[in-house]
Amino acid sequence: MRHFISTRELSAASIYDILNTAEKLRDSSESFSQQYFAANLFFEPSTRTKMSFLVAEKKLGMAPLDFQPESSSMSKGESLYDTARTYEAIGADLLIVRHLSDRWYDELIGKTSIPIINAGAGKGEHPTQSMLDLLTIYQEFGSFENLEVVIAGDIKHSRVARSNAYALTTLGAKVYFTAAPGFEDDSLDFPYVAIEEACAMCDVLMLLRIQHERHVTQTCDTFSYLANYGLTMEREQKMTDHAIILHPAPVNRDVEIDTRLVECTRSRIFKQMENGVYARMAVISILLKEWGVNHENVAEKCQTITL
Amino acid sequence: MRHFISTRELSAASIYDILNTAEKLRDSSESFSQQYFAANLFFEPSTRTKMSFLVAEKKLGMAPLDFQPESSSMSKGESLYDTARTYEAIGADLLIVRHLSDRWYDELIGKTSIPIINAGAGKGEHPTQSMLDLLTIYQEFGSFENLEVVIAGDIKHSRVARSNAYALTTLGAKVYFTAAPGFEDDSLDFPYVAIEEACAMCDVLMLLRIQHERHVTQTCDTFSYLANYGLTMEREQKMTDHAIILHPAPVNRDVEIDTRLVECTRSRIFKQMENGVYARMAVISILLKEWGVNHENVAEKCQTITL
Amino acid sequence: MRHFISTRELSAASIYDILNTAEKLRDSSESFSQQYFAANLFFEPSTRTKMSFLVAEKKLGMAPLDFQPESSSMSKGESLYDTARTYEAIGADLLIVRHLSDRWYDELIGKTSIPIINAGAGKGEHPTQSMLDLLTIYQEFGSFENLEVVIAGDIKHSRVARSNAYALTTLGAKVYFTAAPGFEDDSLDFPYVAIEEACAMCDVLMLLRIQHERHVTQTCDTFSYLANYGLTMEREQKMTDHAIILHPAPVNRDVEIDTRLVECTRSRIFKQMENGVYARMAVISILLKEWGVNHENVAEKCQTITL
Repeated sequence: MRHFISTRELSAASIYDILNTAEKLRDSSESFSQQYFAANLFFEPSTRTKMSFLVAEKKLGMAPLDFQPESSSMSKGESLYDTARTYEAIGADLLIVRHLSDRWYDELIGKTSIPIINAGAGKGEHPTQSMLDLLTIYQEFGSFENLEVVIAGDIKHSRVARSNAYALTTLGAKVYFTAAPGFEDDSLDFPYVAIEEACAMCDVLMLLRIQHERHVTQTCDTFSYLANYGLTMEREQKMTDHAIILHPAPVNRDVEIDTRLVECTRSRIFKQMENGVYARMAVISILLKEWGVNHENVAEKCQTITL
Repeated sequence: MRHFISTRELSAASIYDILNTAEKLRDSSESFSQQYFAANLFFEPSTRTKMSFLVAEKKLGMAPLDFQPESSSMSKGESLYDTARTYEAIGADLLIVRHLSDRWYDELIGKTSIPIINAGAGKGEHPTQSMLDLLTIYQEFGSFENLEVVIAGDIKHSRVARSNAYALTTLGAKVYFTAAPGFEDDSLDFPYVAIEEACAMCDVLMLLRIQHERHVTQTCDTFSYLANYGLTMEREQKMTDHAIILHPAPVNRDVEIDTRLVECTRSRIFKQMENGVYARMAVISILLKEWGVNHENVAEKCQTITL
Repeated sequence: MRHFISTRELSAASIYDILNTAEKLRDSSESFSQQYFAANLFFEPSTRTKMSFLVAEKKLGMAPLDFQPESSSMSKGESLYDTARTYEAIGADLLIVRHLSDRWYDELIGKTSIPIINAGAGKGEHPTQSMLDLLTIYQEFGSFENLEVVIAGDIKHSRVARSNAYALTTLGAKVYFTAAPGFEDDSLDFPYVAIEEACAMCDVLMLLRIQHERHVTQTCDTFSYLANYGLTMEREQKMTDHAIILHPAPVNRDVEIDTRLVECTRSRIFKQMENGVYARMAVISILLKEWGVNHENVAEKCQTITL
């Protein structure tokens, strides 16, 4: 694994390596024996993912390099390529990028000497979100074989749906979609079920966020969305005993899910956030080890200056 | 002390514990034996308070987690509660919050498993500012008993006035207010004096900032404010030899105070900023020790990875 | 050297001290034996310079203090002086300032107890950029005596041109300018040559960025700029074998330089960025050593707190 871009490229073995590394990092932390720099290039707003990467980096003993599009040379018209190469030149050992383009990495892969992690690519993929979702399911069920997972909501605009559908299929789970009219995605070949049926059958109900900010025209009224397509109190009652609820957050309370269910017994929403740190530590640590041997900085010796 | 929200809840013993801890931290720094994370959630602009907390955290060996409302999921409509719980989930050991609501903490207290520090609550309280003000007075006079303290300026819109009035009273000082018409606060029961009388009588003159940004309509003309209600060169001459001047800053030069007095002999304005770091280190350190025993992260062991 | 403000004040010996220190720091890193705080006060947008300072600070074991004009008390009208003094009061050991004023440092020098580094002063100077340019030339040619350096582009609005012209002259290089009509600077006394002649004669071609954001009226059409005044493929062919190309970046691709030349064999553009970290480490380390002996924080002892 040279970069971490898409779950479609990941074998079951690679995914299990990430999940097991993440579990190990939960028990006893590890940090690099020298200071590595991570460039966090978030061209789109983010709290959760960005902070999760930041905590992962700090726990690994890395130094994060922040980036603010509005106060950077991006405001002078600098491209993603030039920005990324700049961070590499000034010492970044790792690039973590979120960008509104679905395939922003095409202009970087093969042109840098450091690994790249996809932290969200437009309506494309969000593979580290998938790893934390998988980790949460893995902790619950111990395996993925024949698990019934329903991904519910705005499939069409969701990079989370795409990344999870690929990875879950690789791991042997059965993936279904449920979506309001207009939220289906023709490019993904998975069976659709109604929300009522979904709740009754699934082991895992993976709710998606309605991406208001990515929609040009509203395809549905958010006020009636909960009643027609969301997780209401009534539908939650129909779920099987062991079924769990996931949501990548931020939650639109009372849109995708009744606000009273956000922290209910079967919700793993805050657990997912916690797992995000361990999943990202695992991805970073595996990538840097893979690249590490040839890395220029490795042998650097540091002396101490006393003023 | 489980959280640090209001000076009204603080006993004299608790306050002295903070002041003495701060003094001890000035002499010899202390840092935690492991890395704790502090989430600095500033929903309102701040240089001084935010940087002061940041330095306090770094001196204690903590890792700060930053937050920018404009580039975060707050721009996707996320609430304070969800934001705070998110930071907790991804590993924050402490929440430090500034918010324009007077009682933002009502939606958090009792719902988190980590301590919360109030870094400014609308027109409510600003208790760590009070601790640094008290520390500055304490260094000067060694006690508070019967000290005459005049708080002067925009009482009505000042969380600093409120927090200090409570704490100083608890410590046995005599608190007076002086305010331009329209800047009085009926909800606080302290005697008002004229600015001339205030200068002549006080041991401590605590000037407040005119909160232009919190006013809907101007209640006074800032150009005549200095002459009528501010600290002019003439009034400073009438102060007793040992009297000192405080101001929480940023100072509106030539509004609350003649610009030539900002760094005069009896001004402690920059000393206050310096003390802010020690006062905040004290509050953080006391809170974390209080919570520490039961804290999940405490036992984490860290191994070193060499690439 | 008490502050680092202008290359005009630097002797050849001081410059060589910086360059040799930078080269030493490339080979084996050094870090301070205790944590010092660097306040990075960037009042203008910056990616490269700000991140370069940040990496330099982290490699030296320092703790950076960030500053965002838009979310700070600058939005309450606080001056540069009050902002700088505030950072000093809360514990900064070093001020690094970029500001749109050509001589912002006039209001600070002599009024702080900590060293100040100029990270860009309006159309005035940008001396650390000059140090990294010199370091890149030094690595290439080993000396500056009689080297022919052409600085090409928007001389009038460039602080980089000014800082480099002074320093290169001090070191014995021969400096020429080439500029489109309206981009000349009457206040600098160096000979002008045409771009064709410049390419044929120079050892170092130092391209400048067209500072769109500093221009009130456009003095030239950017579309025809490359053909008339920029580095085209044809002109690059006329350069001597050993000649190198520099650019402070961000590059306006196909304006100052044909996009295909940005990473050509003789381009040192990304090398410059890498060198920026070492040059800045050198400047910081030399300044702090100079001030260090009298520095209050030096003797601070740190004890460990275990919760």
